[in-house]
Amino acid sequence: MPKPVLKKIVEEADGVYQSILKRRKPRMHMPVRALANVRYSPKVGYFELIGKRKERTLTVGTVKTFAQSLKMMALSKDLIQGDDIASKREAYYISKNWGDARFDEQEESDTVMDDIEAMFEVNREQLGFIPEEHGGEVAGRLTVIDRDDKGKPLAIDCTRFGSGAYSIPISVEHLKFESHAKFIIAIETAGMFQRLVKHNYWKDANCILISMGGVPTRACRRFIRRLADKMRIPVYAFVDGDPYGYFNIYRTLKAGSGNAAHLNQFFCVPIASFLGVTPQDVIDYKLPTHPLKDVDIKRAKDALRNDPFVKHHTEWQAAINQMLKMGVRVEQQAFAKHGLDFVVKDYLPAKLKNPKKFLP
Amino acid sequence: MPKPVLKKIVEEADGVYQSILKRRKPRMHMPVRALANVRYSPKVGYFELIGKRKERTLTVGTVKTFAQSLKMMALSKDLIQGDDIASKREAYYISKNWGDARFDEQEESDTVMDDIEAMFEVNREQLGFIPEEHGGEVAGRLTVIDRDDKGKPLAIDCTRFGSGAYSIPISVEHLKFESHAKFIIAIETAGMFQRLVKHNYWKDANCILISMGGVPTRACRRFIRRLADKMRIPVYAFVDGDPYGYFNIYRTLKAGSGNAAHLNQFFCVPIASFLGVTPQDVIDYKLPTHPLKDVDIKRAKDALRNDPFVKHHTEWQAAINQMLKMGVRVEQQAFAKHGLDFVVKDYLPAKLKNPKKFLP
Repeated sequence: MPKPVLKKIVEEADGVYQSILKRRKPRMHMPVRALANVRYSPKVGYFELIGKRKERTLTVGTVKTFAQSLKMMALSKDLIQGDDIASKREAYYISKNWGDARFDEQEESDTVMDDIEAMFEVNREQLGFIPEEHGGEVAGRLTVIDRDDKGKPLAIDCTRFGSGAYSIPISVEHLKFESHAKFIIAIETAGMFQRLVKHNYWKDANCILISMGGVPTRACRRFIRRLADKMRIPVYAFVDGDPYGYFNIYRTLKAGSGNAAHLNQFFCVPIASFLGVTPQDVIDYKLPTHPLKDVDIKRAKDALRNDPFVKHHTEWQAAINQMLKMGVRVEQQAFAKHGLDFVVKDYLPAKLKNPKKFLP
Repeated sequence: MPKPVLKKIVEEADGVYQSILKRRKPRMHMPVRALANVRYSPKVGYFELIGKRKERTLTVGTVKTFAQSLKMMALSKDLIQGDDIASKREAYYISKNWGDARFDEQEESDTVMDDIEAMFEVNREQLGFIPEEHGGEVAGRLTVIDRDDKGKPLAIDCTRFGSGAYSIPISVEHLKFESHAKFIIAIETAGMFQRLVKHNYWKDANCILISMGGVPTRACRRFIRRLADKMRIPVYAFVDGDPYGYFNIYRTLKAGSGNAAHLNQFFCVPIASFLGVTPQDVIDYKLPTHPLKDVDIKRAKDALRNDPFVKHHTEWQAAINQMLKMGVRVEQQAFAKHGLDFVVKDYLPAKLKNPKKFLP
């Protein structure tokens, strides 16, 4: 249970209270949330905050935001103590009963929530706040340990779902895991996930399959991260061979994004590596392709110029330049040209013989 | 198993073959797929085809499409016999090995697939073709019977997922069900679904919760339909109180859409009724609202004028006029204003005392 957060909230609130008792202006401190306050260290593996902080002092001008911050902290405390959760949207509606401190727009409540998240340096799920959307399906050699309604452990065996799957909940902080799997494959499309499930690929390969369904949600990324940390097994990404798959999906999964840097330490999966589809796969497997669109070319060139992750990895620079030279993108499902089971019987086994050759 | 489809494919192909042996031009017949070929009958509950048919004769001009149709039928036959599935995208890539009959764009292969689906008057899942996306989570008093990799029955108990859920597979034709639930609630947002799961709402209410995640996918609609048919229990829709929730989500779930009328008989849930959120709920429960956007007003007025479903139900006309007069829309999560468990402890129990009052 996230008791340390509870302690932090009480301490912060107590600081404000003591200041008031001493007739001093109460203050709260939180990190500046901007790219200017970020550093990329390949060793750490994700974008980190460099420590610039802003101060919120109680004045006539800040009284409403100050009150809202305290009310939001109180709500978080209630949620944690009551083992409850509230979506961002619900938190906004709850504020309708806060009198003058109520939020007029959800944007305002989201901002205050982000501030608090940054202030306590936790992800908001640890504060009891959950996103609206989830996403992420799991099948394979994994038992998830959740709790039943009496708080007792509830084992969910992800080998026992037939053609279906385990749907990752919006909040995953309380989950525990048991597994003897050798690795995790994080898959871009629901179609490819279903293909691997159909062939019970996880059974012979002794692995865990996770469908990200496009850019992975916070819940999905956090789930993969906690699972990889806990089980100490590698994570291989299997996405479309185009700039969207390389940067919007894989790079976000592995190293995070610039505009939510205070969260990257919780949501990134630095040990992830890139199984495919690579530009070289197009040649090696004679895959059908599509021409790069203008937006693909722009995204690829931007990445070469500006993406700190790409700038640190010459292998990625080479792969992007190869793609640009070939002028084509490729989809995961292109392997179907060689038969529906080609990806299971040929491509994945061949690739997995040498994961050290995967792109970083 | 969908053996009748297999028989239909063989018969149709045999007809073509016999025509050729007799040196006659082979023909295939399929229904015209357009709104002009559709009727709405409230008794049936979904938009129906009225029987106009088009003919595809083998000529110099149609030879490629004709060959593609036959190849697609052959692929379907292989899939059904091999108990396999192919996504629309995979089917397109498979055609890359069909020589001159290969498709250049997926649009072409999708069209041929739609024609075949209409020709045999089945949904394409019965032909072994699956959509790319799925969606739809389930929790509550339901056991889904799938098959394991040896074809043996595999029971999936949807009461045993903790805070997670059972993720509906892309193809649901083979699933069987066991349940003593009294009803199904089909929920628009993942956030509200998670709220009801969090409180184990299904337990006391003895029901099945299904998260549609916005407009329900084919797999999700088909799942609800098959479940409702099999269990003979009512389906209640619980969505946002706005035109998008009323028509794009609820109307699609219940009566289908105009441009895929040959499918409505498989995908609609005519017995569904509308639990909420209604415009009257806004008044009865003093809910926080948002002003209607221009697109909401346009959508509502369009529905009053042109939607055959709305034109048949005076209750819906009254509800829409009430919403337009109030000038506001409301979200499912607005109940949080009265506390996070209000929806579970007050709203749903009060509403469910009288399902006959639900909007049709």
